[in-house]
Amino acid sequence: VGPGGTVSFLTDYGLDDEFVGLLHAVVACLAPGVATVDLTHRIPRQDIRAGALALWRCVPWLPAGAVVGVVDPGVGTSRRAVAVEAGDHTFVGPDNGLLYPAIAAAGTPRRAVSLTNANYQLPAPGPTFAGRDVFAPAAAHLCAGVDLDELGPRIDPASLAGDPIPMATLEEGAVRAWVLWVDGFGNLQLSARPDDIAGLGPSVDAGGNPARRVGTFAELEPGELGLLVDSYGYAALCVNRGSAAAATGLVPGEAVLLRPA
Amino acid sequence: VGPGGTVSFLTDYGLDDEFVGLLHAVVACLAPGVATVDLTHRIPRQDIRAGALALWRCVPWLPAGAVVGVVDPGVGTSRRAVAVEAGDHTFVGPDNGLLYPAIAAAGTPRRAVSLTNANYQLPAPGPTFAGRDVFAPAAAHLCAGVDLDELGPRIDPASLAGDPIPMATLEEGAVRAWVLWVDGFGNLQLSARPDDIAGLGPSVDAGGNPARRVGTFAELEPGELGLLVDSYGYAALCVNRGSAAAATGLVPGEAVLLRPA
Amino acid sequence: VGPGGTVSFLTDYGLDDEFVGLLHAVVACLAPGVATVDLTHRIPRQDIRAGALALWRCVPWLPAGAVVGVVDPGVGTSRRAVAVEAGDHTFVGPDNGLLYPAIAAAGTPRRAVSLTNANYQLPAPGPTFAGRDVFAPAAAHLCAGVDLDELGPRIDPASLAGDPIPMATLEEGAVRAWVLWVDGFGNLQLSARPDDIAGLGPSVDAGGNPARRVGTFAELEPGELGLLVDSYGYAALCVNRGSAAAATGLVPGEAVLLRPA
Repeated sequence: VGPGGTVSFLTDYGLDDEFVGLLHAVVACLAPGVATVDLTHRIPRQDIRAGALALWRCVPWLPAGAVVGVVDPGVGTSRRAVAVEAGDHTFVGPDNGLLYPAIAAAGTPRRAVSLTNANYQLPAPGPTFAGRDVFAPAAAHLCAGVDLDELGPRIDPASLAGDPIPMATLEEGAVRAWVLWVDGFGNLQLSARPDDIAGLGPSVDAGGNPARRVGTFAELEPGELGLLVDSYGYAALCVNRGSAAAATGLVPGEAVLLRPA
Repeated sequence: VGPGGTVSFLTDYGLDDEFVGLLHAVVACLAPGVATVDLTHRIPRQDIRAGALALWRCVPWLPAGAVVGVVDPGVGTSRRAVAVEAGDHTFVGPDNGLLYPAIAAAGTPRRAVSLTNANYQLPAPGPTFAGRDVFAPAAAHLCAGVDLDELGPRIDPASLAGDPIPMATLEEGAVRAWVLWVDGFGNLQLSARPDDIAGLGPSVDAGGNPARRVGTFAELEPGELGLLVDSYGYAALCVNRGSAAAATGLVPGEAVLLRPA
Repeated sequence: VGPGGTVSFLTDYGLDDEFVGLLHAVVACLAPGVATVDLTHRIPRQDIRAGALALWRCVPWLPAGAVVGVVDPGVGTSRRAVAVEAGDHTFVGPDNGLLYPAIAAAGTPRRAVSLTNANYQLPAPGPTFAGRDVFAPAAAHLCAGVDLDELGPRIDPASLAGDPIPMATLEEGAVRAWVLWVDGFGNLQLSARPDDIAGLGPSVDAGGNPARRVGTFAELEPGELGLLVDSYGYAALCVNRGSAAAATGLVPGEAVLLRPA
């Protein structure tokens, strides 16, 4: 990372408590002048998969620097705290799969360490609050110029926990995809790329729901379900000025079979 | 704008997804060191009028720089993306009326351009996500010193979409105003200025609700409805430690007749 | 404070309106380049006690600078607006008890002033919006290098409104504590320190609820209630991957008797 890097945060802390504020307070104390970005703090509580997908979606736009992800149901257990260098970023967080898809999208990991050097952590008045005491300090120190190897011993990047994102499979003229994400507008992002859906034609059956293959929202009639490529480059089911999630009842993690109608 | 300017944001993106985070990530990438301010991201989804009023209310306190407004139900249609210089600000967003009242409050537009120069936009992996790919990059480049004319061809400021804010009308000793805004405390801001309500006397009938003309919240009994000038300089209906919206049932956009009681 | 300080904010403004954005806009206008931290803006509306406890919890991690707290049901009355120097911080807000526990935790107050000098405030188009017009400007000016004594006349720190946080009392082998806080995970922080609960043994009756004394969440079975020391150094009732608040029905401010079971 080195001087000039930005600290980006993604957590499931929510905004009701002062947890997010403490992350920023720690960076302001340890690395004054270092810029911070809040990607989101509204990942559903303890939903590693949702957090992993959101962090992965952000990768192409992340500023160079440290990227802290915290969705950490295993806090207090023996799960490792890690920092992993890939692309222009050092990803910092629990070793529970949360960081895995983002690291894979950023590039081949160059170095990975286990965050065990207490000199670069904050003392806790009780059990460790890992975001405040371990992860934010590591990110702040990295962006202040501390070398990754100071933070703890090297670990094998191949030992990092993680699952690949399930991608679409092709089945006899149909495409089986998974719902990756429902955004706040109710759009359903699917685990299929433009090539996967190229052969489906203009009228599609999406898990029993008739959908029209379009280029943008605006081509749809109000209330009509559409299949398009979204602004992240993935297939998505959308309703113009409405919610595809409400229209179809589909939820994240569910499989949906796309066929020509 | 020029170096030293701040990028201020107002959108309907909400905080559940990483959309707002991507705006900040883009500014951090394209214009490191440029300061950002989040005015609010909780404008009701696709409610151009509510967004326009909130942005307009902020104008007297905006730092010099670029002001990005995004409430954009027409994304993907032929609506223009624009940047308009007025006062110490360059307003950036869709040309759908959202920016209009704020521009009018900031001063006479000096220059306006259509944001069509792809060199100052980000490539999208799918359809354009205008906030991330067009508006935030334009604001970042402006605050990094790029001249407005680089971003696209000049357009006539008189061609900008927009409606004036409906102001109060005087009717035979009464004032007809509109509810502009219900804030989170339940206060109802009305489209009337102090002069409009000066002649109503100490006891007012506000659309059938008895209200007392006071200077501050604290003069009201608990639960009592009051008519006062709010901290933005507009007439407002308020309940001390309570909600005027709940007490009256009035909602934004509704007309209310104010008469001496 | 002096140059280099950070402005930290804690309010009950919520995030739906542009109130928080205006605080940041004011700092950006009056003190360009000064860093800001949002501790939280989701204190329950007008709940001085909840705000006071949250601000107090943050003290050990606050960056040097100005700390603005606004939960202000008495705005518009004669309650004073104050700034109080203690430790590395100057606390700025209404004199209603909100700041008291945080000031006490930061150290003995060195200087306190009443914020009455209009030269360091913003003119309001109507009644004062104290956060925007008085508190944020005071904090911005302090971090830009204005001396505290410029902001208004000295007041006696002993005259500040405030109640101490109620701590635990020991009763015949039992501990009577109060629920200080329910965080977003449903954990119940109690007004007891590690020493207070050291003699309770491994099985505890917490107001009629059986609880096990553990070191971390992870030692608990799913759904089991535990008594532990939390990451702030206080006793807390927790359920591993669940909500202790839901399991016990306890709410902030309620007393709970802890006894060996």
